[in-house]
Amino acid sequence: MVNEKAYALGSKRSAIRELFEYAKKRGAEIGAENVFDFSIGNPSIPAPARVHAEIERLMQEMPSVELHGYTSAQGDKSVRETIADNMLSRFGFAMDADLLYMTCGAAASLTITLNALTAEQGDEFLVFAPFFPEYRVFVEGAGAKLVVLPADENLQPDLEALKKALNPKVRGVIINSPNNPSGVVYTKEKLEGMAAILRAHSETYSTVYLISDEPYRELVYDESTAVTFPMNVYENTLICYSYSKALSLPGERIGYIAVSPKAADAKSVYAAVCGAGRMLGFVCAPALFQRVVAACDGLTGELSVYRKNRDLLYKGLTDCGFECIYPDGAFYLFMKTPEGDANAFCERAKKYELLLVSGESFGAPEYVRIAYCVATERIEKALPAFALLAKEYGLRG
Amino acid sequence: MVNEKAYALGSKRSAIRELFEYAKKRGAEIGAENVFDFSIGNPSIPAPARVHAEIERLMQEMPSVELHGYTSAQGDKSVRETIADNMLSRFGFAMDADLLYMTCGAAASLTITLNALTAEQGDEFLVFAPFFPEYRVFVEGAGAKLVVLPADENLQPDLEALKKALNPKVRGVIINSPNNPSGVVYTKEKLEGMAAILRAHSETYSTVYLISDEPYRELVYDESTAVTFPMNVYENTLICYSYSKALSLPGERIGYIAVSPKAADAKSVYAAVCGAGRMLGFVCAPALFQRVVAACDGLTGELSVYRKNRDLLYKGLTDCGFECIYPDGAFYLFMKTPEGDANAFCERAKKYELLLVSGESFGAPEYVRIAYCVATERIEKALPAFALLAKEYGLRG
Repeated sequence: MVNEKAYALGSKRSAIRELFEYAKKRGAEIGAENVFDFSIGNPSIPAPARVHAEIERLMQEMPSVELHGYTSAQGDKSVRETIADNMLSRFGFAMDADLLYMTCGAAASLTITLNALTAEQGDEFLVFAPFFPEYRVFVEGAGAKLVVLPADENLQPDLEALKKALNPKVRGVIINSPNNPSGVVYTKEKLEGMAAILRAHSETYSTVYLISDEPYRELVYDESTAVTFPMNVYENTLICYSYSKALSLPGERIGYIAVSPKAADAKSVYAAVCGAGRMLGFVCAPALFQRVVAACDGLTGELSVYRKNRDLLYKGLTDCGFECIYPDGAFYLFMKTPEGDANAFCERAKKYELLLVSGESFGAPEYVRIAYCVATERIEKALPAFALLAKEYGLRG
Repeated sequence: MVNEKAYALGSKRSAIRELFEYAKKRGAEIGAENVFDFSIGNPSIPAPARVHAEIERLMQEMPSVELHGYTSAQGDKSVRETIADNMLSRFGFAMDADLLYMTCGAAASLTITLNALTAEQGDEFLVFAPFFPEYRVFVEGAGAKLVVLPADENLQPDLEALKKALNPKVRGVIINSPNNPSGVVYTKEKLEGMAAILRAHSETYSTVYLISDEPYRELVYDESTAVTFPMNVYENTLICYSYSKALSLPGERIGYIAVSPKAADAKSVYAAVCGAGRMLGFVCAPALFQRVVAACDGLTGELSVYRKNRDLLYKGLTDCGFECIYPDGAFYLFMKTPEGDANAFCERAKKYELLLVSGESFGAPEYVRIAYCVATERIEKALPAFALLAKEYGLRG
């Protein structure tokens, strides 16, 4: 007699975790270097040197009881001030440090935000396919309902679908740009269109908040690709940020929630964020890393590795004849399967030791996700296997 | 339109937080050294030297992407194995590493456990007064009901009350020994009595789990005081542990949940723990500190400071004529108020710049909590103020 929902979530592995375990087993059989595992979104480049330098400095300069002591629940005040100042200098947005709440990473940012905004059981949150599947777990955990909307042909949000889906139960729209799993960066025009629709609805009915989940914000590879800072486009915005990907610190669980000072009822929303954090069991974000990320806010690891991987993989796969979405950011490439059934395609790919994630759980059952945060040699060695796979489908190969 | 419960929790300060803010304000007026703040349970001794030594070693020896990468959701396997091994050597208990789940600290250990065990809305968890007030937030956040039972005259659990309170809706009993706020350590006899009652009920009706919240386990000051390892006494036990107090790392958010391998449905309970963690937004416990605490498991800071503080304060207050519970452990002294109304007593104490926490929120409205995790000089300087306060009540002073 336990919580059934929790039991179900805890006893069945996610598709990605299944593949991860398969990779280990297969690696033991034929050698890890012969398994082309593209399943996990774990950063493959080291944290910037500044991270360890800051840890050293803090251990030397700050008394232990202060450095490792509780910060306020919202996070250390000077940490929040630094991040708010950076939002002004980096994005031209005047953030209020007292509307920033430091969290234990992206998942915490999302569960806290969703719990804070769910006023009644059955409230709705909208998301565009393809989307990170844990959103469903988080939304349902908050007692709300996830409604999945289609993307357009470029995997940008379908704004007509958004218009139709809005109703007084909708509390928020979750966006994720650069996107996991597609690598697509939402255009400024799309976000402006979205803002106009949400603004009109908010003014007439009830406020719809934009929840921008942006752990990949800094991971873009072309000069021409600009990630739009959503608070500059829509007033009712909450940013859920994590330093996991930009600083290659996914295990350290550190991020923040930012409530736009221009949002309707910003102070009430922030109070609800603080209360939801308390209810879910978050006391404060890890104290040492709060200070580390404040000093490293805006830095990244050596992104040229990801750029090289992306270019190599995109060229290799399109040369084989595969249809791919050009990945502007994040470290995922989304590839259309020639047979239209991603699960079947992934099974075939396994014959060539290629481990890809089916798009089914992302709400895109014709695609597969290929995580290219791996050693470049893995991609070089895998391309001939992709070519053989392509030939099976009558492509150039 | 936000989550009302979260809003209420986030917009009203706890009594302890109110005092903390008052202390800052008053300190600015008369000098911080003249404010005798005994409100906060923040460790006042540095972390053991081994903590920083381990951080240094890990930064030098482990590749960044591994050290700061995701661990499995349950926690790094070798970390869990080390902690399980230590349970055998320290407490003679054969723990299974695959029933250990690393968490972001005590609050996370509790919310995850309570969510995992709440099968239906309205399920009950029992606790004995006096108790840590956040238990109510955590239990209600899980959709369950907190039922408070009385203590006996020594502030040990009242077992007759326990017998009467048991019913088929009861999922668990929360204990906290050494206790916050009383400093009392539950005796082995009491725990054995409790186990017999819970065992009989579990065998006849449904399993009642013992949830042992033990962040103060290592903080005891007399050779004669033994903290009973609850898994040695009752099979259906979950330990919610945190390293915050023992290693003086409250800001780093690191602890664990241990499900006894002897518990009924241990594997299902563990699966529900994993699922509840996922639902609440916990991905893995902070990775660097997982490894640090594994290396430091069982160590403490220099406890002689707390022992000295306890002895000085207990003698000073009883010499004044105050009636105090002898604190075997933790770093709190629980004192009976001469007028029987802790709120009024705390207001009078403020006249002497003594900041004490009323027992009301702990379910003990005749007591005040005095946190002695402070510099020894603060106690020395405060004792004359306590003497004046005592005289107001016609005590020796």
